[in-house]
Amino acid sequence: MSNQLFENIKALHLVPLLNQGVFGIEKEGQRVTESGTLSQQPHPRQLGSRTFHPYITTDFAEMQTELVTDTFDQTSDVHQQLLALEQVLQASMETSEYIWPLSMPPILPADEQAIPISAYSVDVKDYRDYLTQRYGRRLQMVSGVHYNFSLSPTLLVRLFDEHYHNDFVNLKDFSDALYMHIAQNYIRYHYVLTYLFGASPIAETGFLADMQQLPEHPVRSLRASEWFGYRNKQLSIQFDSVAHYVDSMHQAITKGSLISEREYYGAVRLRSHSLDEMLSTGVDYLEFRGFDINPYTETGIDQQQLDFLHLFFTYLLSLPQLAGDLPAQINTGNQLNNAIALEDPTQPSQFQAQLKTFMADLAQFMTDYQLDARFKQAWAAMNTRVQDYQQTLSYQLVSEIKDGSLTTFAMKQARQFKRQLTEKPFQLQGYTDMELSTQMVMFDAFQKGLHVAVLDRSDQFIELTHQQHHELVKNGNMTSLDRLISWPLVDNKVVTKIVLANQGIRVPAGAEYTDLAVAKRDYQAAFGQRAIVIKPKTSNMGAGITTFLTRPSEIDFVTAFKLAQQYDQQVLVEEYIAGSEYRFLVMDHQVQAVLERVPANVVGDGHATITQLVAKKNRNELRGEDHRTPLQNIRLGAREQLILKQQGYQIDDVPMRGSQVFLLQNSNISNGGDSVDVTDEIDQSYFAIAEKVAAILNLSVAGIDIIIPNLYQSYDVKHPEMAVVLEANYNPAMLMHLFPMMGKQRRVTIKMLAMLFPELEIETNS
Amino acid sequence: MSNQLFENIKALHLVPLLNQGVFGIEKEGQRVTESGTLSQQPHPRQLGSRTFHPYITTDFAEMQTELVTDTFDQTSDVHQQLLALEQVLQASMETSEYIWPLSMPPILPADEQAIPISAYSVDVKDYRDYLTQRYGRRLQMVSGVHYNFSLSPTLLVRLFDEHYHNDFVNLKDFSDALYMHIAQNYIRYHYVLTYLFGASPIAETGFLADMQQLPEHPVRSLRASEWFGYRNKQLSIQFDSVAHYVDSMHQAITKGSLISEREYYGAVRLRSHSLDEMLSTGVDYLEFRGFDINPYTETGIDQQQLDFLHLFFTYLLSLPQLAGDLPAQINTGNQLNNAIALEDPTQPSQFQAQLKTFMADLAQFMTDYQLDARFKQAWAAMNTRVQDYQQTLSYQLVSEIKDGSLTTFAMKQARQFKRQLTEKPFQLQGYTDMELSTQMVMFDAFQKGLHVAVLDRSDQFIELTHQQHHELVKNGNMTSLDRLISWPLVDNKVVTKIVLANQGIRVPAGAEYTDLAVAKRDYQAAFGQRAIVIKPKTSNMGAGITTFLTRPSEIDFVTAFKLAQQYDQQVLVEEYIAGSEYRFLVMDHQVQAVLERVPANVVGDGHATITQLVAKKNRNELRGEDHRTPLQNIRLGAREQLILKQQGYQIDDVPMRGSQVFLLQNSNISNGGDSVDVTDEIDQSYFAIAEKVAAILNLSVAGIDIIIPNLYQSYDVKHPEMAVVLEANYNPAMLMHLFPMMGKQRRVTIKMLAMLFPELEIETNS
Repeated sequence: MSNQLFENIKALHLVPLLNQGVFGIEKEGQRVTESGTLSQQPHPRQLGSRTFHPYITTDFAEMQTELVTDTFDQTSDVHQQLLALEQVLQASMETSEYIWPLSMPPILPADEQAIPISAYSVDVKDYRDYLTQRYGRRLQMVSGVHYNFSLSPTLLVRLFDEHYHNDFVNLKDFSDALYMHIAQNYIRYHYVLTYLFGASPIAETGFLADMQQLPEHPVRSLRASEWFGYRNKQLSIQFDSVAHYVDSMHQAITKGSLISEREYYGAVRLRSHSLDEMLSTGVDYLEFRGFDINPYTETGIDQQQLDFLHLFFTYLLSLPQLAGDLPAQINTGNQLNNAIALEDPTQPSQFQAQLKTFMADLAQFMTDYQLDARFKQAWAAMNTRVQDYQQTLSYQLVSEIKDGSLTTFAMKQARQFKRQLTEKPFQLQGYTDMELSTQMVMFDAFQKGLHVAVLDRSDQFIELTHQQHHELVKNGNMTSLDRLISWPLVDNKVVTKIVLANQGIRVPAGAEYTDLAVAKRDYQAAFGQRAIVIKPKTSNMGAGITTFLTRPSEIDFVTAFKLAQQYDQQVLVEEYIAGSEYRFLVMDHQVQAVLERVPANVVGDGHATITQLVAKKNRNELRGEDHRTPLQNIRLGAREQLILKQQGYQIDDVPMRGSQVFLLQNSNISNGGDSVDVTDEIDQSYFAIAEKVAAILNLSVAGIDIIIPNLYQSYDVKHPEMAVVLEANYNPAMLMHLFPMMGKQRRVTIKMLAMLFPELEIETNS
Repeated sequence: MSNQLFENIKALHLVPLLNQGVFGIEKEGQRVTESGTLSQQPHPRQLGSRTFHPYITTDFAEMQTELVTDTFDQTSDVHQQLLALEQVLQASMETSEYIWPLSMPPILPADEQAIPISAYSVDVKDYRDYLTQRYGRRLQMVSGVHYNFSLSPTLLVRLFDEHYHNDFVNLKDFSDALYMHIAQNYIRYHYVLTYLFGASPIAETGFLADMQQLPEHPVRSLRASEWFGYRNKQLSIQFDSVAHYVDSMHQAITKGSLISEREYYGAVRLRSHSLDEMLSTGVDYLEFRGFDINPYTETGIDQQQLDFLHLFFTYLLSLPQLAGDLPAQINTGNQLNNAIALEDPTQPSQFQAQLKTFMADLAQFMTDYQLDARFKQAWAAMNTRVQDYQQTLSYQLVSEIKDGSLTTFAMKQARQFKRQLTEKPFQLQGYTDMELSTQMVMFDAFQKGLHVAVLDRSDQFIELTHQQHHELVKNGNMTSLDRLISWPLVDNKVVTKIVLANQGIRVPAGAEYTDLAVAKRDYQAAFGQRAIVIKPKTSNMGAGITTFLTRPSEIDFVTAFKLAQQYDQQVLVEEYIAGSEYRFLVMDHQVQAVLERVPANVVGDGHATITQLVAKKNRNELRGEDHRTPLQNIRLGAREQLILKQQGYQIDDVPMRGSQVFLLQNSNISNGGDSVDVTDEIDQSYFAIAEKVAAILNLSVAGIDIIIPNLYQSYDVKHPEMAVVLEANYNPAMLMHLFPMMGKQRRVTIKMLAMLFPELEIETNS
């Protein structure tokens, strides 16, 4: 069928579907201490409950973490999620903990009973006890990467419907045949992967205890070799048909060779919802279990490996049916694999000629079917390893062995990976192109064990799920918690002010104008001598705003009005409110955080010029450009220089030590403003005002901007001017509370998840 | 104080505030039969409960309706609301009922016991019984217009703060002084208004029963004269100060001359929250009660009258304090008024010289203070009545008297007004500039007794209130019933499809592209031979859409893709779904209405050309332009002619009798499509699908578009193609269900109010 299969794929224009598939990864890793011994800390509390966590759990031992990705139709999506999960895991561990980056475990305790098994439920404990009994704890400490793969469902349907419906009874039989074909050839050829990916040359001292001796020299992959004791003995699983596969698996279980399907440690497993259902519903996917952890990447497997494997599986489909006796072929495959696994990696492989032929054929296959460039890149990278054995992972690892141990190397890698993954806590690796607030919500959701689906990446649209409970989140905090009407309400500043004023909230008096003559007539009648602000209705980061601290002359008023109209035909003329601006974040009817927002400024040290002070302040790692960081760089453009000039400064002046110099008037964080958490400092009497505003506007998640002259003075209801509400937001930036320039960090994103999923009882006191 | 007052107003730039004030109207009117006798129908059931209705209630008799407006700071706003209330009232009455357009009642029953008093509560009944006892039922049947007025609060505050704070103890005293000044001068000069507005020249036969005789000739205003028995006798209410006013009112009540303040029928009342509070809180507003119903306008008082009265009140403030003895001056004023009221309107007034002088002084006042043009227009209109007595309302009415009765004239006016108010049921008079759906929600809210506030007219933002329960509504149905996330969710068609498909809803397969090469590669792989549609992601009324019923050639695909990209860089390539399109309106988890939408079409009659058939179809009063009607006109532009051409037609062709000719492919009502209510016809099995979609998307008010090949065939879960969901809307047009081209009208706006205000228990089965 095979070559004909690919000719049919070509004829039916289905080649693009070869670039797709369904991919998923599981990756294990040991938590270790600074010195590279097993961590004795329990599984991180911040990671929620392992009873339902879809992504981060433990394998055999308590410190043996296991990351499980979702399935995706692109390998890049899998890799991104795996990277994110690795970050969440490592950021949730103790400061002194690391993830061991090798498949073979670190030095184990002399007494294997000192390895705590992971037993968070009765079922889990029973199975671990069985494994301990059967294999001992040491062997279970070996870790690896599993790769789950399905063919594109559309490819299967189209091929069956348009060509193979006469050759097979149904789609399932057709699909099963393709999967069996891949599985057979995989066993026959997986030695290629062991050569390319093998990365377990030695075991640490004491790994063996009372078992047999290690090979005398380092090898390509202990873990992939038959030497490795963690194998099913005397087991004969059939790969000629799905029926025989299921039958032989059932027999093994009946005989007690296996306690269940999951104890089967072959190179490839056929998977369905359950073994029993496989006969009726067919093979859902193939599970490939043989991959050593790649210690040169944080994720244990890199993008090129994922792509190469996809290419490899696809190619296996194009190979002819294995000739002759299948068990013999399978035996050949396994022997080849064992031989190559136990080769000394510091020498060329005895199978190099075969490997080269295999790679050449693979290249031809890619050319024949015009596969994606990513396959060619992955192939090229792997081909260097075939051409030069010194490029293999195993060769490189051997060069890192010191005193028969890889601990020093492993810990160097572990520390580097942890630093890389955690140095920018305001980003979620794998998703750094998304908005920061969405990245933080995803981080928290991954941490707490909510299922996360990115529905529209550029639109910042994600879905969070716990069991049957789905919640959509856009832009970090637009959710079902709030009301549809709140959007147009809060966007319409005039209506917002009416509604608030009707309920007794003090807002700036003022009105909206398009006609200068009307505005001129009105402002004199309405404001008298009071200070006023003239601004475009849609104000873009402070542009076009003029403030008059006393009544302006008619000429000045006209000038300011016309300036504002350069930005928006609609101009607001409002009373000016003096005082500092505070952002109250109200969630679930209660103030969660209060931030003081200060316009961009520097404080003189008596030596540095303003230019130097700005440069120094901008070196803060929280500052950056284009909203890729929680705070933004201070600029020194024309606008800032004008403001400086009004204060009598030029950019090369050296301000007096301790004197604060403002570079802008408006306090937007996005304009380089400072943010200071004052939640615990501000008089708590102001909380009620922010909470009342949120209640009037019916907002569950609200950012309320209030001008307060003196944050330490208790609010007096007889002096409403002590708290003037400027505006409200239905989609308040949460990031500035997570990462203020000064003051306590408030993890308010967690609070939102707790509100969305009350059934999880997420702890919110961070 | 007065002239100096206006000089201060000028100096403080407060003249613009003279154009503002606070205004409210109450207007009574008798429900009558076709023949002009009192209606015996109870107060219309559709108008909800009089126990809380803020706008439409009854006065003395059951058929004596009373409209009460809110207060507004512009007279035009009052007039608009009054017009809307009049429409709602008249549309809620029986078909055979009308509103009597005169102050003097229609012919009353011989036995006054046959006049049913309005007694919807115990309090109301007790007071009506008292009035019956004291005045008899006949007199209580006289109706009129009351006008409530306050000065601009800003004007009062600014004047007090910036000039008069040394002359008065507090703002209240200053304000009270101004109101007393207006009240005194009003009594002195209100004869001018009686001349201008008087419109009760005669009473119908039998009005008097056993009372005194009518004047021998018609008069300007029976109702404003002392002849009119509905007056407080021997009552001496003091107008020299608020304290004396309150004191004299209390004395009258103590003596039994009045049962309460509301029985006081003077030309002007001082009003506060209550008589008792007036001393401490001051006068809130003045109530002017003397205005006859103007039978030449639906609202009983027109915009020019409202403006003239505002001018009149303002002018009174500028007049000097009345010289000499105040009671004498008041007496003079009342006598002048009585004299002019009882003049024969077919003759010039004996006071014409005084009237002319008054009007000339008023003109000078307007010039001195540069008042708004609307005042000048109102003045000019009234001045013609002063210059020519034949222009007065009373003169004109006299000319309509036939056989001593105005019944024929009154019923002619009543019928005309009812027709004007109800001929366009898809509009709410006074608010016709707003979106139709908002007009309908406001209509229903006015009808059911919800308080309605227009917060932002051009933004279609209204607030509905019942007691302390506020609800905001934008665009007719964006409310607190729905979730914030639904907006971006439903706007993102790709995400909507993902979410629906995840829950097993059948949606059109397809994907979004910007790159033609990728699209070209993909569509062949994904769709094979299936029909496809290529369209811009944001499709604007069908432009740029190409449908292929079989797989297109590569050239045709490229052409269609490029056409779509002329409208949006993002292009959707989707499978084409055949069948008719249905809009399911789901509210509160249940389908409320189902509409079949048919693209613009005409059906041949064998005689008329397509142009003629279109013109004929467009004559339907539901059709119009620019969304000012529920259905839109069919056009015959380039697009329509192209579609005709594809069917082998030109616009001058005469289609065969019975043949349906389509002018467009897409079924948008806004493109001239037909709408047919099929709620009762469509197989009910489809309801569950629409309800499930609304539930998945968490929408309380949802419009779900579903393609269904055969509406009569029961949905079969094994054939999901029987109902393919095209899209959902969070803000579905409700109007098309209220006014379909064919089929039953569904008043779904009422359903929304019932959902927003469950406590009202509004009946929704219309």
